[in-house]
Amino acid sequence: MVNVQDEILDLLENLAAAEYYHEFLRENGTKDFLFIRPSGNPIDSDGFKKMTLCGDVIDNYSEIIDIDKLELLSDTSAMCVFIMRENFEYKGIKNDDVAIYTSILKKIKNQWMFSFIHRSSGEVDMSLWNRLRQSMT
Amino acid sequence: MVNVQDEILDLLENLAAAEYYHEFLRENGTKDFLFIRPSGNPIDSDGFKKMTLCGDVIDNYSEIIDIDKLELLSDTSAMCVFIMRENFEYKGIKNDDVAIYTSILKKIKNQWMFSFIHRSSGEVDMSLWNRLRQSMT
Repeated sequence: MVNVQDEILDLLENLAAAEYYHEFLRENGTKDFLFIRPSGNPIDSDGFKKMTLCGDVIDNYSEIIDIDKLELLSDTSAMCVFIMRENFEYKGIKNDDVAIYTSILKKIKNQWMFSFIHRSSGEVDMSLWNRLRQSMT
Repeated sequence: MVNVQDEILDLLENLAAAEYYHEFLRENGTKDFLFIRPSGNPIDSDGFKKMTLCGDVIDNYSEIIDIDKLELLSDTSAMCVFIMRENFEYKGIKNDDVAIYTSILKKIKNQWMFSFIHRSSGEVDMSLWNRLRQSMT
């Protein structure tokens, strides 16, 4: 039997591997899925679709580099705070972002899905996270 | 009997009214409370204490201006996404921030507490949120 943690880790890996967010979210996002950008402004899957189709963003590669918090809040809901590196080009400018993602996940018809994501800006300092963890042990 | 929604709204109002975050969080934050700044870097209640005591920050006033999402995930856990305006001075420079706060709340010994907050940067554009809400109705 697959455990919850493995199912959620699979979902994160699939997010990182996804070519187009709007396609990924169609299969792996709840109907009311909401994404909050670093500015605090919202974007939904249609917004991601427009962003991809206009050709401004070229996604090179993304990888999950850390999971800070993974907590089951009920049998069908969880929160996960993870750190993802994203290497992409935006209007010709290269970016190599390391950002924190706070996410709420829901299990719907036996499948874990993203219900909500809030992304920080892309300059996470991993040494600060490591120091915090050391101070908590 | 007070309902859950009112209890959580009270907690938010008390956060906005709090003079010092580190004092507020001692009474209203879980032991493992974690705050993520717009940069994606963490700060705990000790960090808030240092920030306040060094005198760099003068908090003028804060107010909750909107609640975008309030969802009970179990009898003892909830998520709340709210918008807070914060008027403050940082090292003599005046700020008037409007930021999104994603929070996880837990009911511990019959009291709702903040377990986690992720704050966006302070330039939320309310018109984008209003447009999103209109498109969803």
